[in-house]
Amino acid sequence: MQFSDLAMNLKASEIRELLKLTTMPEVISFAGGLPAPELFPTEQLKKVDDAILTKDGRAALQYGTTEGYDPLRKQIAARMKQAFMVDCNIDNITITSGSQQGLSMLAQIFINPGDVVLVESPTYLGAINAFKLCKPEFVEVPTDEKGVIPEELEKILAKYGDRVRMMYVIPEFQNPTGITWPVERRKAFMDIVNRYDFPVLEDDPYGELRYDGDKVPSLKSMDTKGNIIFLGSFSKILMPGLRIAWMVADPVIIDKVVKLKQAVDLQASSFGQRQTSYYIDMFDLDEHVAKIKALYKKRRDLMCESMKQYFPEGITFTYPEGGLFTWVTLPEGMDAKELMPKVLAKNVAYVPGGPFYPHGGHANHFRLNYSNMPEDRIVEGIKRLADVLKEELAK
Amino acid sequence: MQFSDLAMNLKASEIRELLKLTTMPEVISFAGGLPAPELFPTEQLKKVDDAILTKDGRAALQYGTTEGYDPLRKQIAARMKQAFMVDCNIDNITITSGSQQGLSMLAQIFINPGDVVLVESPTYLGAINAFKLCKPEFVEVPTDEKGVIPEELEKILAKYGDRVRMMYVIPEFQNPTGITWPVERRKAFMDIVNRYDFPVLEDDPYGELRYDGDKVPSLKSMDTKGNIIFLGSFSKILMPGLRIAWMVADPVIIDKVVKLKQAVDLQASSFGQRQTSYYIDMFDLDEHVAKIKALYKKRRDLMCESMKQYFPEGITFTYPEGGLFTWVTLPEGMDAKELMPKVLAKNVAYVPGGPFYPHGGHANHFRLNYSNMPEDRIVEGIKRLADVLKEELAK
Ligand SMILES: Cc1ncc(COP(=O)(O)O)c(C=O)c1O
Ligand SMILES: Cc1ncc(COP(=O)(O)O)c(C=O)c1O
Repeated sequence: MQFSDLAMNLKASEIRELLKLTTMPEVISFAGGLPAPELFPTEQLKKVDDAILTKDGRAALQYGTTEGYDPLRKQIAARMKQAFMVDCNIDNITITSGSQQGLSMLAQIFINPGDVVLVESPTYLGAINAFKLCKPEFVEVPTDEKGVIPEELEKILAKYGDRVRMMYVIPEFQNPTGITWPVERRKAFMDIVNRYDFPVLEDDPYGELRYDGDKVPSLKSMDTKGNIIFLGSFSKILMPGLRIAWMVADPVIIDKVVKLKQAVDLQASSFGQRQTSYYIDMFDLDEHVAKIKALYKKRRDLMCESMKQYFPEGITFTYPEGGLFTWVTLPEGMDAKELMPKVLAKNVAYVPGGPFYPHGGHANHFRLNYSNMPEDRIVEGIKRLADVLKEELAK
Repeated sequence: MQFSDLAMNLKASEIRELLKLTTMPEVISFAGGLPAPELFPTEQLKKVDDAILTKDGRAALQYGTTEGYDPLRKQIAARMKQAFMVDCNIDNITITSGSQQGLSMLAQIFINPGDVVLVESPTYLGAINAFKLCKPEFVEVPTDEKGVIPEELEKILAKYGDRVRMMYVIPEFQNPTGITWPVERRKAFMDIVNRYDFPVLEDDPYGELRYDGDKVPSLKSMDTKGNIIFLGSFSKILMPGLRIAWMVADPVIIDKVVKLKQAVDLQASSFGQRQTSYYIDMFDLDEHVAKIKALYKKRRDLMCESMKQYFPEGITFTYPEGGLFTWVTLPEGMDAKELMPKVLAKNVAYVPGGPFYPHGGHANHFRLNYSNMPEDRIVEGIKRLADVLKEELAK
């Protein structure tokens, strides 16, 4: 059997392979990026599904348009205004099967093999995986505790010029670092983008999950030239299992994406789109998000406090103002991936940092998720992790 | 804004653009390939959704594995045996977001730019659209009223040799022609495939919808070397709006597809997969399929009888033993696309034949769908169509 070059280069996502190992109930998993399932609105969804099937059952089970279910697109336009300060209408919006699909389609739309794609260093590994299919040259833009460093970005743009065809950023509560760009950084960034004119994917699945500090305007809300493509998702504010997300962009880009989606899978689920839309109509999504925030804030605090209390000296971690992750840095020379077997032996799991860098390296980091484990297991897991780290450092 | 070469070459599917024009209630549309919505099991789904949310709500709304929901994969394995005479287990099966996604992923797995893809002439235009993204050279294999002509296939294989990397066929109730390959043809075909050893996509969304004649074994059931990749879908036997379909293939191929799916959209809907699986458990899918068959048989008969009665001489059409479509052939020189405005002016719609050929031409055909319109509108639509055709022929 002869496969294509693309197929020969396919690797399984290290995270997803890891996740398979960590589904045993005895494992305290900080590895995935899973929402807390105990908050899923299962009882409300019973009412939602009943209403859909009573009022709109035939259309909900039939083929629909590729662009998406119009009432949902309208609700998203309203939400973009309210939550992200973005003015847009339904011609700027299309529904995707998760933001992951948005990422993979946008790469196809912008990238020829060999083109340069800029990403934060580190960045979401699912994006690296999606972009890789288009064979770009990845260039990592250095970041600090405030996100992408404008001077470094400018140097890279000067160096690579026209070869830069797309940049990918997560300015809010980044996956994996938990870092958020302050407003001055965003302004400096937009200034550069407007001068060099290139498409920027602003991936923002966590923006509504802020636990402290002030709301910062989205890049899209500062966009005057149509360079920013905003990706939002219901995965973290409602539920990921329906695979409903959205994209906000110039209609020219939306048009390309819709044509591509016709070829790749026709449309997102007619039923899943209505479940999301009816839920927003019948219940209070803001109230639901408030519940999520209250729980995750508690868990973030507990995880950060436990790390402070139990981790040995020489190990640092980020204190995220929102989102699902904190990023741990071990002393230079330590390797989080090599440590995995020892950690797993104690029934604890994290994701080692290397895969979040397209060019690898940076082995002395790992990512911890705090949204998916109950409070007692967070403390217990961090204690066990601390024991392994102490042992290693004592060597 | 600079787009990729792929984006520059994207065209909207002519069918889907057409479908937008034909959603007005006054249009008698024979254009789409939509199932009859009045048969969707909306009342049963209320019970299904309630059961899911009561028993399994958290997992149903959470991220799941890329391979798919295991109980559904097991049910599909059983169905493959019962309905398609194929022995397989869950390692041979993965769930896709519609068969459309199966088609697009398989092209990515097998095709490098410039590789030869063989297709029936004509073939499903959604497949042409999906494959095009990988920039193959399409070679059309001549067909007759029994499907692919083995001698012609053999000539083409001799000519293109190793450059042939994939073939795509719809041996049951083909879209667009309605044609089914008899068993001798299938045997001759498999003999050639086994000699030349290349992957064949057997796309079979309509196989269970046979209205008369005897069941014919699927190609996959005759496959001894793992060359056949079978695509099945719940779109036509249950409902398309959930976007749940499956693929049956050698585990080596399934492994590639799963890795690719991780990058393109992570997974099919956790909830949609459970809706399908619980439906099969709680109700009788065979009984449901029997109802669909009874209705579509009536509609097929009515459409074919009406064409016989009202169409002018010199126009032929296929008499499908199952599926959703009949294929009409106008006298050489007539152009079904040019006729469209006149037909639409009478509030009737079909799909002109040209787009079903990757290299175009063949303008004197159109495709009619009979599953989606009630009986009285079928008769009325065919009468109106006949009027236009008579007028044209009289010129
Ligand atoms: C930064 C980021 N983008 C995109 C996704 C994909 O989310 P989904 O496809 O569920 O919308 C994730 C999921 O964890 C993520 O962390
Ligand atoms: C031959 C064929 N294959 C695949 C499909 C796609 O079906 P789905 O993606 O809904 O499973 C269709 C839909 O009409 C079809 O006719």
